[in-house]
Order: sequence, then structure tokens, then C-alpha cells
Amino acid sequence: MPKLLPKDEVWKYKQYICKAICFDITSGSKIVVLNQDEAHQNDLYIGHRVILRKGEKQSVCIIDLSADLVRPGEIGLFAEAAEELEAKDGDRIEILHMQRPESIEYIKSKMDGKALTKEQIDTVMRELMQNRLSEAELASFITSVYIRGMNEEEIVGLTESIVRTGRTLDLGVSPICDKHCIGGVAGNRTTMVIVPIVAAAGIYIPKTSSRSITSAAGTADTMETICNVSFDIEELKGIVKTTHGCIVWGGGLQLASADDKLIKIRNPLSLDPKGVMLASILAKKKSVGAQYVVIDIPIGKGAKIPTEAEASKLARSFISIGKKLGMKIVVKITDGSRPIGRGIGPALECLDVLSVLNNAGPADLYEKSCLLAGSLLELAGKAKKNCGFEAAKRIVESGKALAKFREIVEKQGGKPNIKISDLPTAAYRYEVEADKSGRIIHIDNKMIAKVARAAGAPNDKAAGIMLHSSVGKSVKKGEILYTIYSNSEAKLDFAIKALEGWNPIKIG
Amino acid sequence: MPKLLPKDEVWKYKQYICKAICFDITSGSKIVVLNQDEAHQNDLYIGHRVILRKGEKQSVCIIDLSADLVRPGEIGLFAEAAEELEAKDGDRIEILHMQRPESIEYIKSKMDGKALTKEQIDTVMRELMQNRLSEAELASFITSVYIRGMNEEEIVGLTESIVRTGRTLDLGVSPICDKHCIGGVAGNRTTMVIVPIVAAAGIYIPKTSSRSITSAAGTADTMETICNVSFDIEELKGIVKTTHGCIVWGGGLQLASADDKLIKIRNPLSLDPKGVMLASILAKKKSVGAQYVVIDIPIGKGAKIPTEAEASKLARSFISIGKKLGMKIVVKITDGSRPIGRGIGPALECLDVLSVLNNAGPADLYEKSCLLAGSLLELAGKAKKNCGFEAAKRIVESGKALAKFREIVEKQGGKPNIKISDLPTAAYRYEVEADKSGRIIHIDNKMIAKVARAAGAPNDKAAGIMLHSSVGKSVKKGEILYTIYSNSEAKLDFAIKALEGWNPIKIG
Repeated sequence: MPKLLPKDEVWKYKQYICKAICFDITSGSKIVVLNQDEAHQNDLYIGHRVILRKGEKQSVCIIDLSADLVRPGEIGLFAEAAEELEAKDGDRIEILHMQRPESIEYIKSKMDGKALTKEQIDTVMRELMQNRLSEAELASFITSVYIRGMNEEEIVGLTESIVRTGRTLDLGVSPICDKHCIGGVAGNRTTMVIVPIVAAAGIYIPKTSSRSITSAAGTADTMETICNVSFDIEELKGIVKTTHGCIVWGGGLQLASADDKLIKIRNPLSLDPKGVMLASILAKKKSVGAQYVVIDIPIGKGAKIPTEAEASKLARSFISIGKKLGMKIVVKITDGSRPIGRGIGPALECLDVLSVLNNAGPADLYEKSCLLAGSLLELAGKAKKNCGFEAAKRIVESGKALAKFREIVEKQGGKPNIKISDLPTAAYRYEVEADKSGRIIHIDNKMIAKVARAAGAPNDKAAGIMLHSSVGKSVKKGEILYTIYSNSEAKLDFAIKALEGWNPIKIG
Repeated sequence: MPKLLPKDEVWKYKQYICKAICFDITSGSKIVVLNQDEAHQNDLYIGHRVILRKGEKQSVCIIDLSADLVRPGEIGLFAEAAEELEAKDGDRIEILHMQRPESIEYIKSKMDGKALTKEQIDTVMRELMQNRLSEAELASFITSVYIRGMNEEEIVGLTESIVRTGRTLDLGVSPICDKHCIGGVAGNRTTMVIVPIVAAAGIYIPKTSSRSITSAAGTADTMETICNVSFDIEELKGIVKTTHGCIVWGGGLQLASADDKLIKIRNPLSLDPKGVMLASILAKKKSVGAQYVVIDIPIGKGAKIPTEAEASKLARSFISIGKKLGMKIVVKITDGSRPIGRGIGPALECLDVLSVLNNAGPADLYEKSCLLAGSLLELAGKAKKNCGFEAAKRIVESGKALAKFREIVEKQGGKPNIKISDLPTAAYRYEVEADKSGRIIHIDNKMIAKVARAAGAPNDKAAGIMLHSSVGKSVKKGEILYTIYSNSEAKLDFAIKALEGWNPIKIG
């Protein structure tokens, strides 16, 4: 919640009061509509920011104008502004001028190549949370950090600020661990295997995951195929304290919520400056109280991090900054040049996960999950050094991981004793054949994801791709390489047409 | 006008059609409101961009959502979107997906320190004009150019793109000249003296000026005190062909309009990267067909360019890039450490101008105007080398400049034979006295402007400050330093209170 600004930050002279009219419009930012003439008389202009107050509630909003729809003495509130003020039609709203945000000076310092102090970073994050910075100002900040970089002290400061300005999960238990993958690999649904293994070993793992942005499915989308993933912090506490683990959507929890605002800016430009990426990941871990963390850095052709040298450098930063933040971190550098598992899309990835937990799934997903889970078992003292992988495998083989997974799914509102046959299936499918004989030399993560998305994933839970072949395998002309699934004939058609431009599987 | 996109840039598959509902809301960007469920079914999300078509009209808009106000099959259009589509209630609007702008790749190249080709710069400017780039993307571009810089080829390319994507004034006459001041000096209303001198000498000077952003008055605000300043291109042509000169507001003409969009982004951060500044200024000159240009670079304490060395460097860039663009440029480096003239605020600056044209005004404004006008007389061959200043003075002394000024004012819809007594005066005033005896060592441009703005300038035409003293003059305690004028008692009070924090005149 943005705090009430100190009185001296506000030009009392410029204040006036209007009656609220609520509009059923959401715009992704807080918008108010002022009467044009009245606004100009009060030196308020289109696109500028203004502070609104209703009793103790306060909101910083962006100004739209209207000549007639909103009359003098009235103020139109779009949904986000009305919600923050808890305003309804007819409420009295105070309108106050906002001074230039302090952050602008620090954004310019970063542009000029200066390192920022912790206090300066904290001011930027506080004003970000108060909605006092425009998209343009934030984009400038991210761009400057991308070009100029951040030193370790700055990254630690940024992480602490993100944690401080958001909510935190205070479980009051131990040990708590967490995992993170840098991403970019299709399939790769390790989280849903790791969480039950680790939880079954008696370690707490309150895992929050994201939804897909450009991939065919995020962990939250995949888990949502079989149970609820949206909970508030208190509900989350209840689940984790009972089952030791959860797999929920992180977006609604306001954990490290400054980061969610930063991500919005980073996405359109696919900007992921190293300093912000590190702070963003570590703040999420810190805000759930994690003591032990395993980070998965996939490398190789098409991965976010192309080379081992770069991955090692990033790994050293993670470990060093984690230490300064009181977290013990292990980094695993993995093969990110191809999909992991056979399914691409929510239900199809769920199928892989359930198969692995039944001791039958794709070997690559099985082994990678046990490798990462094993690291956490070792870190938390539940397995001896170098014995984590075997310990994790035993938990899967014994059926304890499957039992724990079912327990978590049920606790999150899913069907008890979830089985593969409970998964949704698609109404339409299309089989893609090899157009020549040869060895498969590459499967492109990004193109596979694009085709699956064209078919309707992740909104259509059953949509996506099932791979029938893998890199290194020899195929004959006419052999089926993969199947595309969709519940919409039009979308399936669209995905097939997309294949004219994209060829995700390369035969050498 | 943004051009209709080629068909292959559009995913026809994703198209749907809705009925327009026009909203009386302006927001500074093109906003449409889609029904939430229908938008999600069509893979359209809040804050994303979408292409709208109505017949041959097309607009790229940003998506807001509504659950009830806009029902399935309907589309809400805010004023700017409705205007561009010429849409009214009930019109059928096609909604199409927009692909990722090509520019994003080039913005990232610039971020990574690469020089852009002319074609790449042209793409960025074209997509900017098509409204396909978000504020965040543009801020990233400007920030990258600020940090990484631009070489001369890039600046020439940017200038040509800005000229090409906007409208141009084709007078079909010669010689055409123009002037520009880098700004930052209070008062300094030289344009209104230079234009009549130059026009009286038979040179065409189609001068477009800006309104104030942070100053107490822009040239357009000042000229507006006595006549109209908003014309379309055809009207402008008519005025200039008759009188040889004009002093109008450039904002409504769509000359170099890409620059107006860039300025919007540069302003909030006060970012003025050298490359963009050069291109921005030169594109405005090029788009009116100027062959000869004089540039005024004020330097000194508080000026935009602090040192003579920096000013000389900038001057060399102006001259060299101007040459590549086919313009002959002279740069004058002037004293920017103090206000020029005595009045600060539209009517008070107008008073200075009329006084100078009557051979009686402040000597600094008189001399500076003749210096700059003289350069243009020399460049255009109307005065011999080093004789421009004297020639300009003679035009003022002879009364020809005043006559020409009155002719222009009348042609722009002002009172014939405009006189000082025609200027508006303020209802309230306040005299600021020296709090000690001594010599005036500094008058701060920015603070003087802030106090004048607090008093109501430039919206209140009569508001502002009249200086009664100048740098170097000795004053006695209690002597009046300056008078503040305002038509609002509250604003005058506000300006007086502001003086507690700002002390624009320093006595040594």
C-alpha cells in the first residue's frame, strides 16, 4: 500500500474537492477523468500525475480529461483508482498537486554512469510503489541499468528494497527452501516434480510460480490444469504448514510486488538487465523466507544464457549476492538447447509430470528434477554431500513424491488421487511427419512454443504439442515427429499455417 | 497520417468487428475500451496495442477493458481514437492484431552501442508516427541515444526522417531564412524583433515558435497576447507570401511532427540528448525550406550550455550537419547567465519588444536582436560581411521594422497599428525591495521564471515580472528590485510565498 505522503510534499494551495463518478473501465494503470476547464484552472494537465485522497486512503493517478461527460465538481474514476481509494459514486475526493518525484534525479545519475546508494535505490522503489513514476521514467531507469550495469552493493540494495516494499510470507518454520529456473526451455516442468520430492523429505517449499508470458505454459498455468493456484497469503500459510509444499501463482500475493511492476516495463522490450534480474529473482526467494535455494541456468543454442562462461559468471553473482542476503545458493548449469520432457502446453506438461511421479515419465525431466531436488536435500541437510540425486530418486521410486503431489493438489482444491486420466484432452489434433530421413539435430525451444501458442496454449489447457522424437534420434521420411493438439479447429489451422514459417525440428 | 499497413503485416485470422461507442474522454494517447471477455477470447490484453480500421482510416490504439460498460460486439473509443478514425456511435470498426514493431530490434542495437543505419532510423520514426511504439519503448530509445550518442550520419538520417514523416511548407520563393535559440534565458524575446527586421529587408522568414514548457512564456505565448498564432499550412503560406514573415505557433502545423512526439518523451526527464536536439532543431528549419539559419547558443551560469568550449563544439556540429542537409548556418554564442530584456511573462515581454521596435527598449534585447538579424542579412546577401548589425539597426531606427511588425500582427488577426497601450495589464502587483545595499551580482533565469509562473504566467497573459535593475548595478536597501504582476490575488500570494524558497536576485 502506498503510504500517505507527508503534508509538506503537497502544495496545499492547489487542492480542490470533487464528487466521484466510477467508470467500469480498467486500463492497467490508475486513471482519473477531470473536467477539462476545471483541471486547467487548477493547473492540471492531461497525462500528468495527481494525488487523490479519500479520508486516509490515497492514490496517485494519471489525468485524462473530458469536456462534458465529467462536469465541473465531478471526478471520473476508472476501476483501479476507485479500488485503491475504495470509492463509490458520490464520494468526496480531494485532488492535490504532486511534486516532481525525487527518483528522477537518481535515474539521471544512473544514466550518467554513477552507482546509486541504497537510500537512492530505496527512493526509486518507494516512488515506484506509490505509482509516482511514469512508464517512460521507469523505462529510462531499466534502460540505464541495462547499459550502465549495477555493482553488487546496488543489487543487494535493490533486492532489499523490493522485499521491503512488498508483502512477506512469515512461516516461522525451518528449513525453508526454494528453486528458480532462468527459463527459456520448452516443457521443463521440473518444479512440479521437485516440490513434492522436497516436501516429502520434510523441507518447507512455499513455491510461487508465474504464468506464461511468451512460453506455451508457465508452472502456474500447468498446475491450474488440475487445481486452484490463486490463494492469499493466509491461505498459502495454511497449505504449506500442513503439506510442507505448494505450487501456486505468485502474481496475486504481492510478494516482492515492486518486481511485478518492474517486469511490466522489462517485458515489452525483452530487457533483462543482469542487476535487475538478480534482484528480482532473489527478492522473490527472500520474501518467502527461503534459506536454501537452487538456481537452474539452462545454456546452449537458443537459451537465454548462451555459453557456460557466462553462466558461471552469473552463478558466482547469485552465490555472492545470496550470501550477503543470508541465503545459501547452489547453481546448476543445465542443457537448455532443447525442450525437456515431451509435452509442451499445460495439460501435456502435466501428463509428463504425473508420468515422472509414476516412475515412467520422460527420462530427461526425471533426471533433471532429481538433480535439482537433490541439491536442495543436500543444502537442507536431508542428504549427504553428492548423495542428493540418489535420495531424490528414492523418494520418487518409493511413491512418496506422488503421494505428496496428490496431497498438495487436493489441498489446493483439486481432485483427490489425481490421475493421468483426469487430465483434459483436446478435440482436434494434427500429426507432423518428417519430410526426409535423417538424424534430428535440433529442436528449437522458441519455435515449438510459438506453434503451441498458435494452437491455443496456455489459455486452452489441452492445447499444445507432444513430441514423439528427440535430438540425436534417427527418423525415416513420413515418421510422425510430433502431434499438435487444440480445442479450436481454427486455431489448429492457424498453428499448421504457422509451420510454413517456422520449422521447429531440424533433421540433418 | 499513419499509412495503412501492408496486408501481410496483419494476422487476418485474429480480426473481428465491433460497433463504436464514442466516449467524451481525452487521454493524450489513443485509447479504446474493449469488452473484457471478448478481448481475452481474441488474445487481446490490457495495455497492448491493436490496429483499428474503418474503411480506409486506420489507427493504432492502446487497449483498456470493461466488463459491462462496453458489451461484447461493442468498442469504446476515446476522443483521440474516434477523431483519427472519424468514427461516430454505431460505426463498424475492424479490430486487428498488431505485430511486434520492427523498431524494438533497433532500439536494442542502440542500447548495445551500435550505430543505426538511415533505414533503421527511418523505421523507428515511421513506427513512432504510426503510434506503434509505446511510451516505454520511446523512453528507452531516447535514454539509449542519451547514453550512447549518435554520429553525424545518424543525426543527418534522423533529421531527414523527421522531415519526411511530417508535413513541409513549400513556399516556392527565395531566400528563406530562420533562426533558433537553444533557450534557457528568461525574457529574451529576440524572435519578435528579428522577424520584422529580416522581413523588412525582403527575406522570407516563416517563423514557427513553441509555447512555454517550463519558462514564463514562449514566443508563441507572447505573440498571442496581441494576435492569433494558430494557423494551418495554407493560411501560413498566404501570410508569409504577403508580408515575408510571420510569428506563429508551430505545434498545430504538423511540420516535423515526429519531433513533437519525441519532445513529449524528452520533457518529463528533461532529457535532451545532443543528437536528438540537433536533429529536432534542424528538422524544423528544413521543413519550412530554410536555406540560411542563425542559431543562438546562450552560455554561462544557469544556461543550458555552461561553457564556451561546449558551445563551440555544438556550433561545429550545427554547421557541419547543416551543410550535409543543404543549409548554411551561422552560430552566435551569447551571454545566457541573466535575463535579456526587463519583462518576464507574455504581455511584459511584448512590452519590451514594442519598446525596442520604437527605438526605446532595453539595450540588451535591442543589441542582441540586431546581432542575430544582422547575421541573417549577411547570410542572405542583404548586407556586406560584418555590416549586418549596422544594417539591422538602421531598419529598426528607420521605423521599417515597427511597420513590418504591425503589418504581420494585423495579418495574423491582431489590432491594426498595435501600440504599447493595447497590451493587457494585471489587476494586482507586488513590489520586491532590496533587503540590503550592494551590487547585483546575479539574476537567476530559472528562479525568475518560477516566480513568474507561480504568479500565473503564461496562461495569465498579464502575469509575470518586470525587472527594475540589472546585473552590475548598485542598489540601496529598500530600493525596488522588481514588480510581480498577476490577475489572481491567490496566485500573487503564492508567488510571494514562493520567494521564501527562491531568491532570484543576488546582491553581493
